[in-house]
Amino acid sequence: MALIVQKYGGTSVGSLDRIRNVASRIKRLRDEGNQVVAVVSAMGGVTNKLIAMANELNDEPAEREMDVLLSTGEQQSIALVTMALHELGVEAASVTGRQAGIRTTGSHTRGKIDAIDPTMMQGFLDEGKVIICAGFQGLREDGMIHTLGRGGSDLTAIAVASALKADVCQVLTDVDGVYTCDPRIVKDARKMPEVSYDEMLEMASSGTKVMQSRSVEFAKKYGVIFEVRSSLNDNPGTIVTEEHDNMESVVIRGVSIERSQARLTITGIPDEPGKSAAMLSCLAKAEINIDMIISNIAHDGLARHSVTMHSNDLGKAQAALKPIISKLGNTAGIETEAGIAKLSCVGIGMRSHSGVAAKMFEALGAAGINIGMITTSEIKIAVTVDETDIEDAARIVHAAFDLDKEPTK
Amino acid sequence: MALIVQKYGGTSVGSLDRIRNVASRIKRLRDEGNQVVAVVSAMGGVTNKLIAMANELNDEPAEREMDVLLSTGEQQSIALVTMALHELGVEAASVTGRQAGIRTTGSHTRGKIDAIDPTMMQGFLDEGKVIICAGFQGLREDGMIHTLGRGGSDLTAIAVASALKADVCQVLTDVDGVYTCDPRIVKDARKMPEVSYDEMLEMASSGTKVMQSRSVEFAKKYGVIFEVRSSLNDNPGTIVTEEHDNMESVVIRGVSIERSQARLTITGIPDEPGKSAAMLSCLAKAEINIDMIISNIAHDGLARHSVTMHSNDLGKAQAALKPIISKLGNTAGIETEAGIAKLSCVGIGMRSHSGVAAKMFEALGAAGINIGMITTSEIKIAVTVDETDIEDAARIVHAAFDLDKEPTK
Repeated sequence: MALIVQKYGGTSVGSLDRIRNVASRIKRLRDEGNQVVAVVSAMGGVTNKLIAMANELNDEPAEREMDVLLSTGEQQSIALVTMALHELGVEAASVTGRQAGIRTTGSHTRGKIDAIDPTMMQGFLDEGKVIICAGFQGLREDGMIHTLGRGGSDLTAIAVASALKADVCQVLTDVDGVYTCDPRIVKDARKMPEVSYDEMLEMASSGTKVMQSRSVEFAKKYGVIFEVRSSLNDNPGTIVTEEHDNMESVVIRGVSIERSQARLTITGIPDEPGKSAAMLSCLAKAEINIDMIISNIAHDGLARHSVTMHSNDLGKAQAALKPIISKLGNTAGIETEAGIAKLSCVGIGMRSHSGVAAKMFEALGAAGINIGMITTSEIKIAVTVDETDIEDAARIVHAAFDLDKEPTK
Repeated sequence: MALIVQKYGGTSVGSLDRIRNVASRIKRLRDEGNQVVAVVSAMGGVTNKLIAMANELNDEPAEREMDVLLSTGEQQSIALVTMALHELGVEAASVTGRQAGIRTTGSHTRGKIDAIDPTMMQGFLDEGKVIICAGFQGLREDGMIHTLGRGGSDLTAIAVASALKADVCQVLTDVDGVYTCDPRIVKDARKMPEVSYDEMLEMASSGTKVMQSRSVEFAKKYGVIFEVRSSLNDNPGTIVTEEHDNMESVVIRGVSIERSQARLTITGIPDEPGKSAAMLSCLAKAEINIDMIISNIAHDGLARHSVTMHSNDLGKAQAALKPIISKLGNTAGIETEAGIAKLSCVGIGMRSHSGVAAKMFEALGAAGINIGMITTSEIKIAVTVDETDIEDAARIVHAAFDLDKEPTK
């Protein structure tokens, strides 16, 4: 008998029929003799409808009240899924975030899970019940209802799996698993049977939006092995786990792309300490997420700082930096470039293999694709290319590293 | 500065526009220097929609899960009303039943308020905030979400007023107050400025459905004086309070009617102890609410037991009693009569005035209206009449006691 924690997203419980389907899937696991805890999100569309009502009443609804409002979405789902299980004759009980003992810290709408007191859940498991647990929410020490922000239900599932020492944690989504590249772009992309936490993290931050980084980070921190798989079929998915020796033989695990990127460069900066920091903190204050950061010195001895961001943020960034530019003196200026995209190669095998970057650049060069900025981490090489080239670039790099073929171990 | 507790029902918060209207009303009280706690119900229609979803998934949804599901309705309202107040610049915070410290006992969907720990509410009041409190819900000692059943939000308001020692408790509804009779039937019915708890209780159980009896009982027990008034205008309503000497000068406070009643009589019962109890417990087991109970002995020495109930329950009652009848021997039988209605005269002045029943019966008799069953309490006389006669009967009795005129003190 295994203890299985599953997470079903908003699409999976998006209608009463889908809720019945989720109940049937859970019943099957139960009938096979497993203990099951299913973490569920709000029914698809419910959260957006609540947000729309809030925005109609108030331009900037208070975050505390948003938590009170939005947490009702999951509370409705858990009751409905539990009722559907009862209809199938399965003993089950729902638990809200509070009842699941999920204790949180941090500011409203962006809660962090601090601890889990699984007393009530353990009691229900001991009574032989399936548990349907509300994702995305917890209780703050001061008694306030607290939501966990984007991807919060994944985080709940991983935290619950950790607290209950589950044997299996499955994150059920509308994709089959994690692929070597987006199969809509690269036809022969393969589903990876296994990927390390670090690779998953690099891919999450490089455009492979299967999960939010912080859920993966949480899983890594607490050693929760989880599987990303489809809620629509029974195919095995992708297991996300700690890295092990076999993994290193694969140089590149996958290729991620991120579109709609833009570059902003401040040119002609006197090369003095603190100038770069001023620029970055100015962008941070304007709440602009920057991705790549590159600094170098031009032939005239003046520095250039380049950053990339989502192209939607470019105007805001330019406006935010204007006051700084004028203080930098008359050599300084801003260059911007929209319409670029980012291509990332990720693999922990890079650490022990050389020549990866060269191979990647050669392949792109041979195809006449021009590379803009380059950044690297220990297990990632990322480049920017013209957005019009990004799909070709993905196919070329995918082929260059033979990602369509099963890796040899 | 007064502390005012208000209760707004589902109609009053039934749309975003109405929520804005409630917020404006609260702001006005606040601007006048009052502290305000508003207890709100779920937006009109929300609860029924949730019940429909539950019933589609399960013929008999578990009551525990119904509590989890339905309590989200009020949780949404409190957040939305609070956001609307913020938009008007009023400092406000929402509290769920749990956060309001409402501790309950009893079985799911039928919670009773056991105690209130107003710590969080007191904290918000001390910070100068208006509080928007979820009606209809509380937290059971075992950590379960608990709803209070029909009329639960009224009960919440009265309990909160008691716990916070409020100066004023206003139950805002879609009627202007409590009338001497239903103004749709008796055109010159008057709104009563004041009514005693006991009169209100007798009227609630006699068809004047302004409030559930148990809220009035709770108010009586804890001495909470409250006012029933309209949420649509600023007219003074009806104050429900402990009786005082002035009240006794009014013999009849009001006339209530209840339609769609039915009589069921078991005839030919050997006059032995326990027969009546067997009949009543049999009906109770079938969950049939009976109203009037009359027993007498016929000229043949056999007993007759008559009860009244809602006519919808008549078939169920007959079926439930069948096994008993056959055990009573061959003299026994069942008589039924549907299409009757009940007329009640209520007033604490009856205790010190004689001739009330005579006056009532004479007036009805003079109009040719036949009286069926009669029951009395210390402050009520109730009769059944043909349902076709009930409106005439109400007008006649209302006029006989001069209820259209201001009482002389």
